[in-house]
Amino acid sequence: MYLALAGGVGGARLANGLAQCLEDHELTVVVNVGDDFTHCGLRISPDLDTVMYTLAGRNNEKLGWGLAGETWRSFEALKRIGGPAWFQLGDEDVATHLARTQMLGEGRTLSAATRALATAYGVRHRIVPMSDMPVRTMVHTDEGVLEFQRYFVARRCEPVVRSIEYAGAAEASPSADFDAALAAPSLRALVVCPSNPYLSIEPLLAMTGMRKRIGLLEVPRIAVSPIIGNAAVKGPAAKIMRELGHEVSSTGIARFYRGLIDALVIHETDAAQAPAIESLGIRVLVTDTLMGTRERQAELAAQVIGFSGRLAAAALA
Amino acid sequence: MYLALAGGVGGARLANGLAQCLEDHELTVVVNVGDDFTHCGLRISPDLDTVMYTLAGRNNEKLGWGLAGETWRSFEALKRIGGPAWFQLGDEDVATHLARTQMLGEGRTLSAATRALATAYGVRHRIVPMSDMPVRTMVHTDEGVLEFQRYFVARRCEPVVRSIEYAGAAEASPSADFDAALAAPSLRALVVCPSNPYLSIEPLLAMTGMRKRIGLLEVPRIAVSPIIGNAAVKGPAAKIMRELGHEVSSTGIARFYRGLIDALVIHETDAAQAPAIESLGIRVLVTDTLMGTRERQAELAAQVIGFSGRLAAAALA
Repeated sequence: MYLALAGGVGGARLANGLAQCLEDHELTVVVNVGDDFTHCGLRISPDLDTVMYTLAGRNNEKLGWGLAGETWRSFEALKRIGGPAWFQLGDEDVATHLARTQMLGEGRTLSAATRALATAYGVRHRIVPMSDMPVRTMVHTDEGVLEFQRYFVARRCEPVVRSIEYAGAAEASPSADFDAALAAPSLRALVVCPSNPYLSIEPLLAMTGMRKRIGLLEVPRIAVSPIIGNAAVKGPAAKIMRELGHEVSSTGIARFYRGLIDALVIHETDAAQAPAIESLGIRVLVTDTLMGTRERQAELAAQVIGFSGRLAAAALA
Repeated sequence: MYLALAGGVGGARLANGLAQCLEDHELTVVVNVGDDFTHCGLRISPDLDTVMYTLAGRNNEKLGWGLAGETWRSFEALKRIGGPAWFQLGDEDVATHLARTQMLGEGRTLSAATRALATAYGVRHRIVPMSDMPVRTMVHTDEGVLEFQRYFVARRCEPVVRSIEYAGAAEASPSADFDAALAAPSLRALVVCPSNPYLSIEPLLAMTGMRKRIGLLEVPRIAVSPIIGNAAVKGPAAKIMRELGHEVSSTGIARFYRGLIDALVIHETDAAQAPAIESLGIRVLVTDTLMGTRERQAELAAQVIGFSGRLAAAALA
């Protein structure tokens, strides 16, 4: 069984590649909930939805979020009557939020709600929230403290980030499925998807004991760098790294994950950084890490799986 | 200023008639909130919406609720993913619920949210909830206790009603606008719209002190009977009256409101009941109480206003 940690679009793409390579029971995708929020009463889990829609083959490639073929009747009406316009709500996407909110309101866990939704969307592989308890990413900026969606959507990541807080992380425990996957004797590898380390992976790592637990894992732990050259493939990762004083490069990513990963997959463009990364005790795989198509997702996933096999064999030798 | 008490469709129709006859500041429509509930996280106020949509000229005549020209993208998607299918949600109607939920979540009162929504929908006359505090109509039936919407929508009023409880009514106080309207020196008449007495008017009357307060009003208090012959124009009023052991007739309505109203407007069909109703100390106006068209709404409202003027003059004489 492979355990993948994922956030938004990049994470969803590699997760979808892994899903193409692995049987249902061979993959657990653990997803960030730091972006979750309540909007107009709806319990919205952006990263869980992105992963779910992508694995269902229903994601909206053009927008980068939401469902393909979406309509906007409710949202247009909401704007007309003066409702909040900063967060877009597709008509079908709203149904996901309504169903999730109903289930959570009935006392079901986010894990249970996610399982029900993923099944309804025809997803066969397991998608689980990192925790059933609230962890909320709060972005401390030059404009004050912003809830993640306010920073990301309403303010389009424009404020300068000074620090990031993962409210609730210290009290949160991993979801039962995440916990079980970490402890599973059948675990073959941990794959940290090319998601934003600060916004998508760190909320999970900030849970008490999680860094130590991942640090002690005896299976290969492989991250795929979300940085190519000195830019992120998508989203604000590069801007945030820079604002927090880190080097925007795959080497910077390696430093971020030092002690937690055994290997890093980087883009061909960054091949020259391999020695610097290896000097941190992290093995490197150089390949084309862009996943523009479903086929490329599967190819990269297959390379990651193959790499983990070689790392495991080397560890035994 | 005229104060109208209203519930769903019948109440909305007479309120719409009054709105056609009266200037903006001359009418306050106080609306039942006993039907309000939370569904999939959305705060839904069915009677407030029916009155608002009707006064906005946007109500769906065919359905009897919701907005004209509605689409069902979200709801169809919600059903496909296994969400609750028993309560229909139109795409535009959802926007109303989203905006209301957002405002209530921000700490605004239901009165303030209703004012903002009504303004957004272009309603000029004042629509106010009976209370900003929760009052919930619970129907005790042969199938157990059902929340109102479960009884009304999910179970289509089929269970036999044994009693009706207005949970929270004893602790609820009238909304500030309702309170002010009751105390206004400019108040000319109280109009009890042809709504279901048990489901639409009684939740309001059940608030502590309200019966006494209406009983002591010195302006004409006129109800329009929702019963014609031995049937309700719409909805389960007749069935409920029967199940609760009351006579299903305008005389039965007169007995229900005895001590609270000075006069009752009944349909021509029921003209023969006038003496029995007058023997209860209630004056009677016999007319065509059906309001199938917007014009008939205005005509009946004009008759009610005229009747209240004659009653006021008679009281002075």
